[in-house]
Formats: sequence, C-alpha cells, structure tokens
Amino acid sequence: MFIALFKLSRPVNVLIAFLTVVIAAELAGGLTPLTNALLAAIVAALITTGANVINDYYDIAIDRVNKPYRPLAAGVISQNMALNYFILVYFMAWAIAWTLGLPLFLIAVTISILLFFYSYKLKRTVLAGNLTVSFATAMAFIFGGGAVFHYKQALFPALFAFFFHLGREILKDVQDQEGDGQDGAITLPLKYGIKKSLLLMTIVFIIVVILTLIPYILEVYSLWYFLTVCIGVYPVLVFVAFQSWKNNSPEYLGYLSNLLKVDMLIGLLAIYLR
Amino acid sequence: MFIALFKLSRPVNVLIAFLTVVIAAELAGGLTPLTNALLAAIVAALITTGANVINDYYDIAIDRVNKPYRPLAAGVISQNMALNYFILVYFMAWAIAWTLGLPLFLIAVTISILLFFYSYKLKRTVLAGNLTVSFATAMAFIFGGGAVFHYKQALFPALFAFFFHLGREILKDVQDQEGDGQDGAITLPLKYGIKKSLLLMTIVFIIVVILTLIPYILEVYSLWYFLTVCIGVYPVLVFVAFQSWKNNSPEYLGYLSNLLKVDMLIGLLAIYLR
Repeated sequence: MFIALFKLSRPVNVLIAFLTVVIAAELAGGLTPLTNALLAAIVAALITTGANVINDYYDIAIDRVNKPYRPLAAGVISQNMALNYFILVYFMAWAIAWTLGLPLFLIAVTISILLFFYSYKLKRTVLAGNLTVSFATAMAFIFGGGAVFHYKQALFPALFAFFFHLGREILKDVQDQEGDGQDGAITLPLKYGIKKSLLLMTIVFIIVVILTLIPYILEVYSLWYFLTVCIGVYPVLVFVAFQSWKNNSPEYLGYLSNLLKVDMLIGLLAIYLR
Repeated sequence: MFIALFKLSRPVNVLIAFLTVVIAAELAGGLTPLTNALLAAIVAALITTGANVINDYYDIAIDRVNKPYRPLAAGVISQNMALNYFILVYFMAWAIAWTLGLPLFLIAVTISILLFFYSYKLKRTVLAGNLTVSFATAMAFIFGGGAVFHYKQALFPALFAFFFHLGREILKDVQDQEGDGQDGAITLPLKYGIKKSLLLMTIVFIIVVILTLIPYILEVYSLWYFLTVCIGVYPVLVFVAFQSWKNNSPEYLGYLSNLLKVDMLIGLLAIYLR
C-alpha cells in the first residue's frame, strides 16, 4: 500500500518540483540559509504530491479506461484514502510554508488551490490549463528565491520560465491532441486547430527571445549570459518553431519537446552565468 | 542540409554532454576560470556529436529498416559526408582540448577513440557497451573537474556516476531487449536472461550505496550530503531494484529508468551540498 501511495504521488514529478525550487534558490542568491532552501523545496514537493493525487482522483473514470494500472483506477487505493492523503500532504505543505514567513505561505496556499482547481476544472478548458501549469512553474522560482531572501533576483527567471513552459505546453497539446480528443478534453489545437496553436507557440517563443534580451540590454546580466542564450537557447527555439510546422507527427513533436526540455537547462545555465 | 547535419548530431544528447561537463566543473570547484569550463563543455559536446554521427554511420543498414527517417538512412546525408563531418568535429574537439593542457587532451582523445570503437564493435558485445558508456560519463566528471583544476574533487562524483549509469544501462537493456533481439544485438539480458541482468543491476546499486557512504564516513562530505542521499537517493534505488523484479514490462521499466534519471540529479544535489 505504501508503494501504491508512492506511485500515486508520481515521484518523478515530485522530484522535479523539488529540484526546481533548489535550482531557483541557487539561481536567485545561493542556497543560504540551506535549511530554508530545502524546506521550500519540500513544500513544493508536497504540493506537487497533493496536486498529482487530486488529479488522479478526478480522472478516475477516464483512467479506468486508459490507464487501468494507476493505483486509484486499479482500486489498490480507495477514493476516500486518496482524498485523505491529498488533504494530509497539502496540510503538511502549508504548515511548513508557514515557518518560511507570510509571503511564502500565501504563495504556497495560492498555488496549491490553483493546482486543485486545475484538476477539478481548468485542464478541461482551452489554455487555462496551460497557463496554470506555466504559472505554477514560474512561481516555483519566486518561491525558491523568496526562501533565501532574494525575491528580486528571481523575477527574470520566473518570467522566462512562464513563457518558455507555456510554449512547450502548447507544443505538447499538439502532440497529444489525438489522445486528448478521445478523452473528451478540449485543448487549444482541438478547438482552434494545429496551425493556430503552432502560431501561438511561435509568438510565445518570440516573446521569450525579447524578454530574455531585456536583462542583457539593461546591463543586469553579463556578456556570458548573452553568449549562452545566443548560442545555446535561441537556435533551438528557432529550430523548434520552424520544424514543428514542417512535421506534425506526434513522434517528431515529442522529440522537439525533449529538445526544449534540455534547452531549458541551457537557459538556466545562462542565468547562472549572468 | 544544415538541419540534417544538426539532426544527425542528436542535439539532445549533445546538450546533455555539454551540461554534464559544466555541472562536473561546478561540483568539483566552481566555474572558474569560466572560459576553461565552457571550452571543456564544448569539447564534450563535439566528441558526443562525432560519436553520434559515427554511430549512425555504422548503423545505416539497421536504421534503413527501423529508423528510415534518420538523415543517413533517408539518404539526405551521404555516408562520405557523414564521415567527413565526424572527422571534422573530432579534430575540432582535439584542437580545443589541446589548449586545456596535456592531461585533458589525453582524456579527450582516449574517450573519443573509445566511443568510436563503441559504434564500430563494442556495443554489439555483452556488457562492454554498457561499460564504455558509463566510463565515458564518469570521465566527463574528471574532464570538467580537471578543466577548472580540481581533479581530486572530481574523483568521487566520477566513481558514483560510473556505477549509477552502469546500473541504469543494464535496466535499459532489459527494457529494450525485444527490439535489440530483432536487430541482432546481443545485450546482457539476451545472453544471460532477465533475472541475471536484474541481479547484476541490484548488485551494482548496492555498490553505489556503499561507495556513496564512504566520503561521509571519511568525513569528506557533510551531514547535508548524507541526509540528501538517505532521503532522496537510496529509497529510489531500493524501490527500483525491488519493483523491476515484480514488473518487467517495457513501459514500467521505462518509468523506473526515468525515475533513476531524476534521482541522479538528486545525487548531484547531494554532492553539491557536501
């Protein structure tokens, strides 16, 4: 049963949330005090756990058909137990966030509630789901930065993360549209078509390029930052934007989405070198 | 054609090699001199590019059947051109490595030649392929550390990386055995069976646990390191080792392999906190 609860939490997701906050804190000002940075990362991991559990809770009917091996769909965990587990981890997240001060507590509560509504309603609406996920990721940067008392330095990374994730989320919607259509979800490409979705993704990536140039132009970030984004990040964005129009097969879009994921890390490196 | 050469290089792989060396340098002693760290990362990216190109060069017959969309199999790039591209990037890698001093030059040349032989022969032999890949990854840590003049601090990370990757490579062989069998490759599970392979993986993970405890016992690494590996790394290793015996389906092993990939990042975090 503990293994089933572990699987229900989606550990890969949870670990990524944890690492995002650690990286955010390190980027903003370094991991001191280390306890704060790690507590903030634990809060993010707990909120992600709760969000993943409540997601499966609301998706149980769909999962019984498409993912019958998931702990709730398979009946290894009862719905009641999942709900209790969700409440417990959210409560723990809020309790720990409280020790980090009022601003972080409020961010944690806001994001948790938003992620709850994501599963409850938002993800079945056009774009709102994508915006929620991108916003939550962006806030992870503010959260990590805030935990080590460097809110200001976290602003640019959070802004970049928001648009970068938004573009990638749209790409993933195009990639998954067939399965989503069968599930009855209405995502952007299903409502407005592939071309309009890819156009929006391209516009979002143009916004990423413009935004990431600003701190260099303002001389807040260094030449190393500028060179790294110019050599490492922009060519990949241009490549993805062009290629996605030429080849829409799910396999190829999956490959482009992976490319973006690694490119995001190069972006983080650029900020680290700022 | 430039896009075809870009695809032939396998950019995701190349970016990961680049980032591994940057992380290795940062872990060993910090990114100073930054130029050295970035040049070392570029060398790693070039060697990886060459290794990926020569891999497709030797796999062209298999790819024509299984991956007809790859640039060489599709005939977008000629074999002769791929060979020239391979020689060019290897030559560039060695030239840049030369500026980093004799030890790094020798490491770069050794690893390049080893990766060439990997495609030419080793990957069709039992375990030698896995050992080559794990060794190359471990050497990336020495290479990154050496570039910023911190060879000694890179030793433990390199050692951990070697065994961690080895365990994961064996898991991936079990996952891919069906496809590998059709391709005529003889991997560990195809020669000795799934059970013996998983047993070897479990033993390798036990070695990882023992090795990673040593720097804490020797008081080289701190309590933060110890807590992070105890909470973040070991439970995942135990989980993967147990679950892989219970469920051998390729999908589930793919999930476990992903879990290990993220767990590797937690391991890097632990070393960072040392």
